[in-house]
Amino acid sequence: MSAPEFIDLGFARLDTDRITRTGDPEVVFGAGKTATQVVAALRALRAAHPDTPVLATRLSDEALHRCAAEFGESTVDVAGRLVVLGPPRAGHGRVAVACGGTSDLPVVRECAATVAAFGSVPDVIVDVGVAGLHRLLGERDRLAGADVVVAVAGMEAALPAVIGGLIGVPLIAVPTSVGYGWHLDGLTAWLGMLNSCAPGVLTVNVDNGFGAGVAAARIARRRPGQATHG
Amino acid sequence: MSAPEFIDLGFARLDTDRITRTGDPEVVFGAGKTATQVVAALRALRAAHPDTPVLATRLSDEALHRCAAEFGESTVDVAGRLVVLGPPRAGHGRVAVACGGTSDLPVVRECAATVAAFGSVPDVIVDVGVAGLHRLLGERDRLAGADVVVAVAGMEAALPAVIGGLIGVPLIAVPTSVGYGWHLDGLTAWLGMLNSCAPGVLTVNVDNGFGAGVAAARIARRRPGQATHG
Amino acid sequence: MSAPEFIDLGFARLDTDRITRTGDPEVVFGAGKTATQVVAALRALRAAHPDTPVLATRLSDEALHRCAAEFGESTVDVAGRLVVLGPPRAGHGRVAVACGGTSDLPVVRECAATVAAFGSVPDVIVDVGVAGLHRLLGERDRLAGADVVVAVAGMEAALPAVIGGLIGVPLIAVPTSVGYGWHLDGLTAWLGMLNSCAPGVLTVNVDNGFGAGVAAARIARRRPGQATHG
Amino acid sequence: MSAPEFIDLGFARLDTDRITRTGDPEVVFGAGKTATQVVAALRALRAAHPDTPVLATRLSDEALHRCAAEFGESTVDVAGRLVVLGPPRAGHGRVAVACGGTSDLPVVRECAATVAAFGSVPDVIVDVGVAGLHRLLGERDRLAGADVVVAVAGMEAALPAVIGGLIGVPLIAVPTSVGYGWHLDGLTAWLGMLNSCAPGVLTVNVDNGFGAGVAAARIARRRPGQATHG
Amino acid sequence: MSAPEFIDLGFARLDTDRITRTGDPEVVFGAGKTATQVVAALRALRAAHPDTPVLATRLSDEALHRCAAEFGESTVDVAGRLVVLGPPRAGHGRVAVACGGTSDLPVVRECAATVAAFGSVPDVIVDVGVAGLHRLLGERDRLAGADVVVAVAGMEAALPAVIGGLIGVPLIAVPTSVGYGWHLDGLTAWLGMLNSCAPGVLTVNVDNGFGAGVAAARIARRRPGQATHG
Amino acid sequence: MSAPEFIDLGFARLDTDRITRTGDPEVVFGAGKTATQVVAALRALRAAHPDTPVLATRLSDEALHRCAAEFGESTVDVAGRLVVLGPPRAGHGRVAVACGGTSDLPVVRECAATVAAFGSVPDVIVDVGVAGLHRLLGERDRLAGADVVVAVAGMEAALPAVIGGLIGVPLIAVPTSVGYGWHLDGLTAWLGMLNSCAPGVLTVNVDNGFGAGVAAARIARRRPGQATHG
Amino acid sequence: MSAPEFIDLGFARLDTDRITRTGDPEVVFGAGKTATQVVAALRALRAAHPDTPVLATRLSDEALHRCAAEFGESTVDVAGRLVVLGPPRAGHGRVAVACGGTSDLPVVRECAATVAAFGSVPDVIVDVGVAGLHRLLGERDRLAGADVVVAVAGMEAALPAVIGGLIGVPLIAVPTSVGYGWHLDGLTAWLGMLNSCAPGVLTVNVDNGFGAGVAAARIARRRPGQATHG
Amino acid sequence: MSAPEFIDLGFARLDTDRITRTGDPEVVFGAGKTATQVVAALRALRAAHPDTPVLATRLSDEALHRCAAEFGESTVDVAGRLVVLGPPRAGHGRVAVACGGTSDLPVVRECAATVAAFGSVPDVIVDVGVAGLHRLLGERDRLAGADVVVAVAGMEAALPAVIGGLIGVPLIAVPTSVGYGWHLDGLTAWLGMLNSCAPGVLTVNVDNGFGAGVAAARIARRRPGQATHG
Repeated sequence: MSAPEFIDLGFARLDTDRITRTGDPEVVFGAGKTATQVVAALRALRAAHPDTPVLATRLSDEALHRCAAEFGESTVDVAGRLVVLGPPRAGHGRVAVACGGTSDLPVVRECAATVAAFGSVPDVIVDVGVAGLHRLLGERDRLAGADVVVAVAGMEAALPAVIGGLIGVPLIAVPTSVGYGWHLDGLTAWLGMLNSCAPGVLTVNVDNGFGAGVAAARIARRRPGQATHG
Repeated sequence: MSAPEFIDLGFARLDTDRITRTGDPEVVFGAGKTATQVVAALRALRAAHPDTPVLATRLSDEALHRCAAEFGESTVDVAGRLVVLGPPRAGHGRVAVACGGTSDLPVVRECAATVAAFGSVPDVIVDVGVAGLHRLLGERDRLAGADVVVAVAGMEAALPAVIGGLIGVPLIAVPTSVGYGWHLDGLTAWLGMLNSCAPGVLTVNVDNGFGAGVAAARIARRRPGQATHG
Repeated sequence: MSAPEFIDLGFARLDTDRITRTGDPEVVFGAGKTATQVVAALRALRAAHPDTPVLATRLSDEALHRCAAEFGESTVDVAGRLVVLGPPRAGHGRVAVACGGTSDLPVVRECAATVAAFGSVPDVIVDVGVAGLHRLLGERDRLAGADVVVAVAGMEAALPAVIGGLIGVPLIAVPTSVGYGWHLDGLTAWLGMLNSCAPGVLTVNVDNGFGAGVAAARIARRRPGQATHG
Repeated sequence: MSAPEFIDLGFARLDTDRITRTGDPEVVFGAGKTATQVVAALRALRAAHPDTPVLATRLSDEALHRCAAEFGESTVDVAGRLVVLGPPRAGHGRVAVACGGTSDLPVVRECAATVAAFGSVPDVIVDVGVAGLHRLLGERDRLAGADVVVAVAGMEAALPAVIGGLIGVPLIAVPTSVGYGWHLDGLTAWLGMLNSCAPGVLTVNVDNGFGAGVAAARIARRRPGQATHG
Repeated sequence: MSAPEFIDLGFARLDTDRITRTGDPEVVFGAGKTATQVVAALRALRAAHPDTPVLATRLSDEALHRCAAEFGESTVDVAGRLVVLGPPRAGHGRVAVACGGTSDLPVVRECAATVAAFGSVPDVIVDVGVAGLHRLLGERDRLAGADVVVAVAGMEAALPAVIGGLIGVPLIAVPTSVGYGWHLDGLTAWLGMLNSCAPGVLTVNVDNGFGAGVAAARIARRRPGQATHG
Repeated sequence: MSAPEFIDLGFARLDTDRITRTGDPEVVFGAGKTATQVVAALRALRAAHPDTPVLATRLSDEALHRCAAEFGESTVDVAGRLVVLGPPRAGHGRVAVACGGTSDLPVVRECAATVAAFGSVPDVIVDVGVAGLHRLLGERDRLAGADVVVAVAGMEAALPAVIGGLIGVPLIAVPTSVGYGWHLDGLTAWLGMLNSCAPGVLTVNVDNGFGAGVAAARIARRRPGQATHG
Repeated sequence: MSAPEFIDLGFARLDTDRITRTGDPEVVFGAGKTATQVVAALRALRAAHPDTPVLATRLSDEALHRCAAEFGESTVDVAGRLVVLGPPRAGHGRVAVACGGTSDLPVVRECAATVAAFGSVPDVIVDVGVAGLHRLLGERDRLAGADVVVAVAGMEAALPAVIGGLIGVPLIAVPTSVGYGWHLDGLTAWLGMLNSCAPGVLTVNVDNGFGAGVAAARIARRRPGQATHG
Repeated sequence: MSAPEFIDLGFARLDTDRITRTGDPEVVFGAGKTATQVVAALRALRAAHPDTPVLATRLSDEALHRCAAEFGESTVDVAGRLVVLGPPRAGHGRVAVACGGTSDLPVVRECAATVAAFGSVPDVIVDVGVAGLHRLLGERDRLAGADVVVAVAGMEAALPAVIGGLIGVPLIAVPTSVGYGWHLDGLTAWLGMLNSCAPGVLTVNVDNGFGAGVAAARIARRRPGQATHG
C-alpha cells in the first residue's frame, strides 16, 4: 500500500496494483480513446510492469499504426485490433478457441490474445462450423484435451450445442454479430447459446472475446491443491 | 359450378370444392371450436368426400374424446391433438420428419398426419438432436433419400443447420416453443432457423407442423413431366 | 477423395467438391470481401469447374467494376449486385419469381440468378402488388403453371397470402426491407408472411433472395422417379 | 350548466352532458366492472337520456345475463359482449364493416353496435378474406358506395391493402389478435396495417372495434354545409 | 380503356388514370429516386394532367434544387421536402393540422401539401404543445370548426388525447420521430396515440404526414347527399 | 449495535434498526408471503416499534382478511391491498397524489399510504385526466402548493406532461398498467413519461406506488437548514 | 402581461417570463439548431435576463466554437457540450452528482451545469463505480450529507442500488448509453435502475443529465417553511 | 459398447453410459413429466448406478410427494423442487453459491444440488444483496477462497458486478425472474449481467441454476496435472 495503487494519466487512472490483488493484468481498452492516449497508457503500464505482457484491445486504425511505430517489441494484430507489448507470460493450462467461419476471426484473435495475457495458452481452431461437420469431428480430441473450450459463432450459433454434446470440458460460448439479413446484431446467436440443448454452456456478451478470454484464463490457469471434500 | 362450392354449417363455411381446384383437402382447424362443432364439420366433410381422408387438428381433449366415440373408423392421436377419418390417400414421394427431442413430438405428429392427408408419405425420425450427433449421422442416408426433409426443433434449433450441411434435399425447418428459461416462446428457435449457416433453409411459424406438412406434401407429391429448359 | 476437396486461397477455402456431393455449386458471397478477393475466388472456381456457371453475390461497386473488366464472358448485374461467369447451366423446372414493386427488384434479381446457377429456370414477374389487383389476377395462369413460386414483397407483405389463395404450387415468400416509416427493417413483412392466412407459405430471412433461390431450385429441379407409396 | 353535468354512482361519474357537447353518447365500458355496476350505470344513463340508445361494451358473461334479465327492451349480443338499451338512433351515412374470417366477428359486432349508437348505419360484410379473393371482389360496389369502410383483420392483415387499392372511400383498419403461432397478440396485423401499400389507411389499437366505430360514425354522420374553398 | 392507363418511364409506371377512378391524384414519392427521375416523373404527370396540381414528396436536396430550376410555376418547400406543380385545386372542407413543436414542422408541411393536392383546404396551427396549455385552449374554436383535425406530435404524444377531450371532430394522430434520449424512433409517440384516453383517435405510421393528408382530404372533401337512415 | 439489528422470523429477517439509520421504516412486502407470514412479520415490527406506524403492501385477499381479524387498531385498505398498524406518524410537507382515472386508484392508495408511513402527508386528487381538462385546471393551485406532486396515469400517460407545464414543483410520474388493447402492460405509459415534453419529470417502475411514495416522502419531509451556497 | 412573454426569433419563441412563473430559467436546447441560431438565442436571453446565468446544452462543435468566440464572459464546456453565460446564480442546497466511470462524464457535466443554472450547487464525484467498491465507500459521508444524489451509470447500472442501500437521501438515477457489446443503447442501464433493489430510486431517460439536473435543483433549492401536519 | 448405452422407458431414453464418457451423471428433468414417469426414471437410474447419487429437478408437487413416499433414502427439497437419491458423491473443489435475497433461494438450491451431483462441493451464502453491502463484504474471504463463485440475483442484478470487483475467482452469474413491476421476467437481470462492469462474468439463462451448477462443477472438479506452457 506504500507504493501508489494508481498511475493518474489525467484521462484515466491505471490500476497497477491489480495483478498482485487478483492475478489479472490491467488492460487498455481502446474504444473511445485517441491514439495518443493509448500510447501513453501502454507506455505507463509497460514501465510499471517490465516483466509481464501488456495488452490493448479495440484499437482504431490510427492507434494500431502509432503503436507499430512507437513500440519496437510489440505484436500488432490488425485483424484482432489489438497490441501486446513486453515479454510473453508463462501460461498454465490450454484454452481451445474454436470458431465456425472466417468472419468470426477478429473475436477469436481478441480472445486468444487475452487468454495469453491473463496467464493461459490459447489454441486456435478455425473453420469448424456445423455446416461441414466432418471438420469439427476431426478436431474432437484436440477439444476434449483442452482445459476450457471457447466456442465463437454467429448466425444460428449451433457450434456450442454440438461441441457440448461431444465433450465434458468447461465451455464458454461467444456470440458474434455475424450474419446476413435480420439477425439483430448478434441477438440471434446469443439467444441460441443461452438455449443450448447441451447443459452447462456459459455465455458472454456479443463479440466479447475479451470477456471470454479473461474467464477462460482464470479457469485454465487455476492451481490445483484444493482439498477433496465429500 | 353447378354443385355447391360450400357447405354452410352456420358456424363455418366448408370449401368442399377445394381439392378439385388445388389438390389440397379442406381441413378442420379445431382451435376455438367446440367439440360439437368439430364433430359436425368432420361429418359433413366425410360425407362430401367419401374417398379421401379428412383431417382435424388442434383439438381439445373433449373434441378428441367425442371423435373417438362418434367415428368408428377414425385414427385419434391424442399426443398430436388430431383426428383422421376415412380411407388413407395414396401418397407420392416421401417426407422425412425429423426432430431433436421428445418434447417436439406433438408438432412432428401434426406435420406427419398433414403430409399424409395432403398426398405424400411421412417418415418420422425422432431423437436425432445435435447434442448426440452420432444418432443424427446414423440416419444420414434416410434423410438424403427423402424428397423433402422437415426438421422440427426447439431450444437453439441447430438441427436444420447440421442437416443442411449434410444433404441437398429441400429442407423445411419448424421452430418449436420448447425450451427452459427465457426462450421467448420459440422466437429463439425461429431466429436461429432464419439465420442458418446452411443455405436454402425454409421456415414456417412456431409450432406450425400443419403449415410445414402442407408445403412438404405439395413439394413431394409434385408430378414430374415438366419440360427441361436450358 | 484423391483430388483435393478445397482450394485454399488464404482468405477463403473453396469447396470445389460440393457440386458432386449435393448438386449445388459453390458461390462467392461478396459481402465483406475486397474486389481483389472476389476476383481471385471467381477465377479459381471458374478454373475448377469449366463446364458450369459460377455465381458471386452481394458485390460492392468496386467488385462489380473489377469483374466487368477482368472477365470477358461474364454477366454483371449492377442492380442485383451479382456476377455470373461461364456457360449457362441446363435448367429443370420453372421458378416464377414475382414481386409487388420496383423497390423489390434487387432481391428478385439475386433470387433469379441463384435459381439459374442452381439448376432451374427463373421466370420473373414484376409489378403485381396487391394494391393493383388486376395486374396480379392477369398473371394467374403463369403462376399456376410454375413448379415453385417465389413471392417477394415488403411493406405489409400481402402478396403471398393472395397468391396462396389462388394456386396450389409450392410457395416461398421473401420479405424485403422496403417501406416507409416504422417498418422495422423488414420485420413487418416477415411477420406478415409467417402469419399468412393461406396455408403452406414458406419463408426465408429478410432480403434473402439467395436463400430462396437455392431452395426453389432444389425443389424445381428435383427428378421424378420416386416410388408411389400408399 | 344549471343542470348537473355528472351523475355520481360512487364507482363512476357518468358524463350526461356529453351528447350535447360533442354529439357522442356516454358509453359504459364493462371491462373491470361488476354486473351490478354495469346494470346501475345503464339504468342511470337510460333515465337521463330516454330518447337515445345506451351502449355497454366488453361485458362479462354475468353482466350479459343480468342485463338480459333486467332490461326488457334491450339487445343483448353475447358474441359481441355488448348490450344496447332504448330506442334506435336515426343514423346518417353508411359504414361498411368488413372482415376476413369468422374469428374477427366479435370485433366486427362491437364496431357495428358502436357505429349505430354514435349516429350512423353499420353495414356488416363478413368472410371476405384475401385468401379467397372472389368473395371480396364480389362486394366491391357495396364497399365503394359506403361513406366509410372499416376493415377488420388478423393474421397478416392484408385486407385493408387490397381494399385500399380498389376504392377511394375513407378507410379504417382494425387489427385483431387472431392467428396461429407467433403473431404477437395482434402486433403482426397492426404493423401490417401501418405499412399498407395502399395510401391513407388509418388504424386503431388491436381489437378496438369500439374506437373504430366512434371514428367511423363521426366521419359518416358529418353534415355537409361546409363552405367550398379554393 | 382505349387511352393508356400508364405512362411507362422505364424506372416507374405512372398511373394517370387514377384520379378518374378514385378522385386521388398520382404522387411522385421521391425517396430512393434520383433528381433526374423525379423531374422526369413530374414532367410526365404535369403533361398528362394540365388542370390539376402535381405533388412530389420526400425529395433529396438535389431533387429540390433541380425542381426549382426546371419548373417555373412550382412551389418548392425545402423544410417539407416537397414540390407542387401546376394550378391549385379547388378544395372542399377544412383540415386543421396542429402540432406541438417546431421539430414537427416537416411532417406538418408534408401533410398540409397533401391535403391541398387531394382536394381539401389545410389550416396549419403550430406551437400548441400540451406543456403550454393556454396556447392550445386559445385555438379551441378553430379546431372545433374544422372538418377533420390532424394532430402531429412526438415525445409522449399527449396532444391528440387533450384535443380529443375538447372536441368531437374526426381526429387523426401522426406520431413523429422527435424526442431526446430513448424514444425508439417514434414508437413512444405511436404507442401513446394508440392508447389515447380520448375515444376515436385514428393513427398512421411514424412521420407519415402524407398518409394522414390523404385520409384527411378524403374525409373532408366528401360530398353530402348520402341518405339518412334510421 | 448492542441491540439486535434484525429480528429473524425464519422466513424473513426484519431490519428493525433501519428507521434510526435512514429515517425510513421497515415495510412488509406481501407479494409471495402467506397470510400467516404477513401477520407474524407485522406483529414483530409492531412490537419493535410501538411508536411508529407499520405498513404492509401487496397483500392477498386472505392476508387482508387475517389482518382485519387479528389487529384491532389497524387500517385495512382492500382496494389498495395494504394494512397500516399503530399510531399515525407526524408528517412533514405535503405530497399531492393525482391520477387520471378510477382504474389508477389502487396505485394511488399504495402511494398515499407509503407517503404517510414514511413521514409526509398525502393529498389525493382523483379524476383529473387530460381528456377532461377543466377538472385538472380546477386543481392547479392545490398542485402548485404541494411539496411534491406524484402523477399516476396509464394509457398514453399525458398527465405529467400537462402538469409539468403548469407548475414548477418536483414531479414524480407513476405509469400504470391500465389500458385497452395493446399497451404492453404499462410500457406505453412508461415510455411516454420518460419522453415527457415537460422537463424534470422523474419516473419509477410500472404500478410502483410504493417506490414513488418512498421517494416523495423523502423529498417532502426534508428538513431545511442546509447552507445557502453561491 | 403588459410586457411581452415571448421573444420571437423566427426559428424559436423564447419564454422569457418563465423564471418568474416557475423559478426555472429558459434554456437553449442546441440539438438540431445551427450555430447561428444558438448564438442568437443566447444573445436574446442574455439581454432579457442580465442578472441570471443562461444555459445552452447539446451543442455541436461548431456552436461551441462560435460561442467561445462571441461571448467573452462565457464558460464553454466542450466535454459537456454546453455553454453558460452571465453571472453565477446563488445556489440553495447541494446536489451530489456521482458516476461510475469516465465515459459517463459528459452526462455528469450536463447535469451539474443544469443544477447550477436552476438554482442549486452541484458537487461532482467521479470514478466511484461498484467494480472498485472502496472508492464509493470512501465517499459515503459526502453523499449522505447532500440534499439530493444523482447517480449516473451505464453498463449494468448497479451504482444507484448500492448508494440507495447506504443512505436515505432523495436519489435520482441517470442511465447512460455506455457499454460494450449488446446493451441496447442504454436500455440495460435503464431497466436496471427501474428494478433497483433499493426502494425509492427515481429515473429519467437515457443520457438525460439535463432532466435530472432540473429535477434535482427543484428538490434541493426548495425553501422550508412548509407547515408540519400530522 | 457391449453393455447397453440406453435404458428405454418408452417415454424417455436414459443415457446410462454418460458418466463414463463425460464424467457427468444423467439427470431427470421433471418439467412436463408425470409423477409416475419421474419415479420410474429415478428407479431405473438408481439401479444402473448404485454407487453414485441420482438427481431429479423441476418437479411438480405431486412428483415431490411421490418421491418422498417411494424412496426411503432420498433427499426431497420442496423449495428447490428436486430430489436426490443414493450415496453422496465425493466432491472436488468448492463452489460458492451466493444470492441477494430469499426469493432467489429456489434457484440457489437447484444450483447447489447440481454442483454436488456433478462432483463438487457447494457452499451456499444467502442474503448478501448489494442494498446491504456490509453483509457481502463480511463474506469476502469465503468467496475469494472458492474455486468458482455462482452469483444468483434478480432485479437489477448488481451482485456479480460487485463480487467481480472484489475477487479474481471464476464467476458465473445466474439471473432470476425476481422483481416487482416491469422486469421482463428476468431479462433485466440477464442484460445487467451481460453488461457487468467487472470483466470475465459468465452467464446462463434466467433461473437456470441447473446449468450454472453443471458448469461450476466441471470447473471446480477439474484435475490439475495439465502441463505448464509458455
